[in-house]
Amino acid sequence: MLKKAVPIVVVRRLPRYYRYLSELLEGGTTRISSKALSEKMNVTASQIRQDLNCFGGFGQQGYGYNVEELQKTIAEILGLHRNYTMIMIGAGNLGRAIANYAGFKRRGFNLIGIFDNAPELEGQVVNGVTVMHTDKLENFCKIHKPQIAALTIPKASVNELANRLDSYGVQGIWNFSHADIVTDRAIPVESVHLSDSLMTLSYRVSAAMEQEEAES
Amino acid sequence: MLKKAVPIVVVRRLPRYYRYLSELLEGGTTRISSKALSEKMNVTASQIRQDLNCFGGFGQQGYGYNVEELQKTIAEILGLHRNYTMIMIGAGNLGRAIANYAGFKRRGFNLIGIFDNAPELEGQVVNGVTVMHTDKLENFCKIHKPQIAALTIPKASVNELANRLDSYGVQGIWNFSHADIVTDRAIPVESVHLSDSLMTLSYRVSAAMEQEEAES
Repeated sequence: MLKKAVPIVVVRRLPRYYRYLSELLEGGTTRISSKALSEKMNVTASQIRQDLNCFGGFGQQGYGYNVEELQKTIAEILGLHRNYTMIMIGAGNLGRAIANYAGFKRRGFNLIGIFDNAPELEGQVVNGVTVMHTDKLENFCKIHKPQIAALTIPKASVNELANRLDSYGVQGIWNFSHADIVTDRAIPVESVHLSDSLMTLSYRVSAAMEQEEAES
Repeated sequence: MLKKAVPIVVVRRLPRYYRYLSELLEGGTTRISSKALSEKMNVTASQIRQDLNCFGGFGQQGYGYNVEELQKTIAEILGLHRNYTMIMIGAGNLGRAIANYAGFKRRGFNLIGIFDNAPELEGQVVNGVTVMHTDKLENFCKIHKPQIAALTIPKASVNELANRLDSYGVQGIWNFSHADIVTDRAIPVESVHLSDSLMTLSYRVSAAMEQEEAES
């Protein structure tokens, strides 16, 4: 109900709000003005007021926001009150690092299976979960119905795999491969493109260097 | 020169163009129309024409784009013709996975040092580079002048460290910690916020579930 009213551009800013509000709570702050929050987050106070107005008038004029209430509401909008079962496909360096990443358990994502094509990885234990060969994937999905799949595999096979996962009932994909995924039924895909991020950094560093060279 | 004319919103789209053009080249395509490229990339042809016009009229009416020429120009704008020296701070699971990530070497980023606070990691070899204790960081920077630092450390210490790196002459930061970094002199920081990405996925999956629940 609530969610339909929140524009996607605002949604993409919510994790950052959640992060800052959680830090405030950890530090014992119970109330904060939009001005103080805006200085902390380096956005304008009016942007904050507009964003937060999308899901109800939290700030009271002169009283500021109730940090705990606001954090809780954002968590609910983000679906963080739910629990998801997750599988990981790709048990290489990146897959193992992500599997060992403590953050997603805290967000309600429970890793229940890890798969890889390489026979030599079969049977290895990563963060308490045993790596299985990918040929067991379909059967595993039938029995355990994982909701999320994290993909840390080469780009070549990623689209075909995403469609298979979709047909097995997976409802969302966390994609680390260097490809954009478009599934036939368009299930949600969130991509972390390390290489794109590195290229943007390259641009910015290179631009700063050029400017220095031009000025000297 | 060129770069100043390219708006930052376009810059952020360039890695994706680069990725698709590289794939086309690998597949032997030498020429492509904005229409065909737009279908492949799932954006409008007019957006592509607008974006690419920012740095010169590449498409010839009726002839399409020269894929190699366009890819080369984008690479140059992104600074991919340069080579950067990079250090990694944090040799935990994520740090090691990133250090082993083949992609950044291909982009001209050469890893020359890895640092960690944990004494038990000192001396371990990751992707051919020996982990040093962080107390050797300053001296290392004086001698080797690394240009980029990748940070895979807890958020608590990240801002203070970023400012130290800035004072040591580091020119850009690739940030994997769950914090936004603002340095005193505002050197470029590109962040990969895994947790934010996961929360956005949570929102989208949760929203789809709610809709299904409402419809059933």
